[in-house]
Amino acid sequence: MRPSAILEAAVYVDDLSEAERFYGGVLGLELLAKVEGRHIFFRCGEAVLLLFDPKATEVPPEPDARLPVPPHGSRGPGHLCFSASADEIELWKTRLAAQNIAIEADLEWPRGGRSIYFRDPSGNSLEFAEPRIWGFS
Amino acid sequence: MRPSAILEAAVYVDDLSEAERFYGGVLGLELLAKVEGRHIFFRCGEAVLLLFDPKATEVPPEPDARLPVPPHGSRGPGHLCFSASADEIELWKTRLAAQNIAIEADLEWPRGGRSIYFRDPSGNSLEFAEPRIWGFS
Repeated sequence: MRPSAILEAAVYVDDLSEAERFYGGVLGLELLAKVEGRHIFFRCGEAVLLLFDPKATEVPPEPDARLPVPPHGSRGPGHLCFSASADEIELWKTRLAAQNIAIEADLEWPRGGRSIYFRDPSGNSLEFAEPRIWGFS
Repeated sequence: MRPSAILEAAVYVDDLSEAERFYGGVLGLELLAKVEGRHIFFRCGEAVLLLFDPKATEVPPEPDARLPVPPHGSRGPGHLCFSASADEIELWKTRLAAQNIAIEADLEWPRGGRSIYFRDPSGNSLEFAEPRIWGFS
């Protein structure tokens, strides 16, 4: 028995409204859930991208909380990579440029496959990459 | 066009050897890549779990680097959730207890589905959850 898939990945942001405009508006992800001042969650295929404000999530739950989710919360730029085909990466490059979002790196990996890197408004390092950089089909 | 899947999710750790024993040994994930002092990567289904030491990854690449991957690096406990069936969650609870890993929370979600929470050796909040907590089949 080993974990079969990543169901949720988290990124921490300092401005949830800005994050909503970026991940929902620019990237076009589908909104799943939102709690003002704490988090905003987006669907991404069969997984969920969790955007948290660490100031809220690092506070331990009340002793009588109905859903005592353990505290967590990171500071500083994290990293997340979305899957994309070669054609999609080319289209994303154009679309991000049109929104004045800088492409920080554009790499061809030794084993084949391309990645582009950019930042979300909180400074997290985001990437679009072809699954074949990991040998995935 | 919207991102179709999360290809890589990152968690930051302060001890990569301990992380290797935990994610590879206790959780049984398949090792994909490793660079001493910088990172260790595991396959998880059709995605990759990246474990980074932020002290290494927050350093910008050399100007002449062949693969100038942009810097990133978070401090403080992050969060990641693995997909698991109801039966697997029960088995994981037993297996983690046998390794003296505390179950920090065990929740039944209002819309149905169970989550268990525990910590990796660096204090990151990990979870096993049924995909149906998000309405996924």
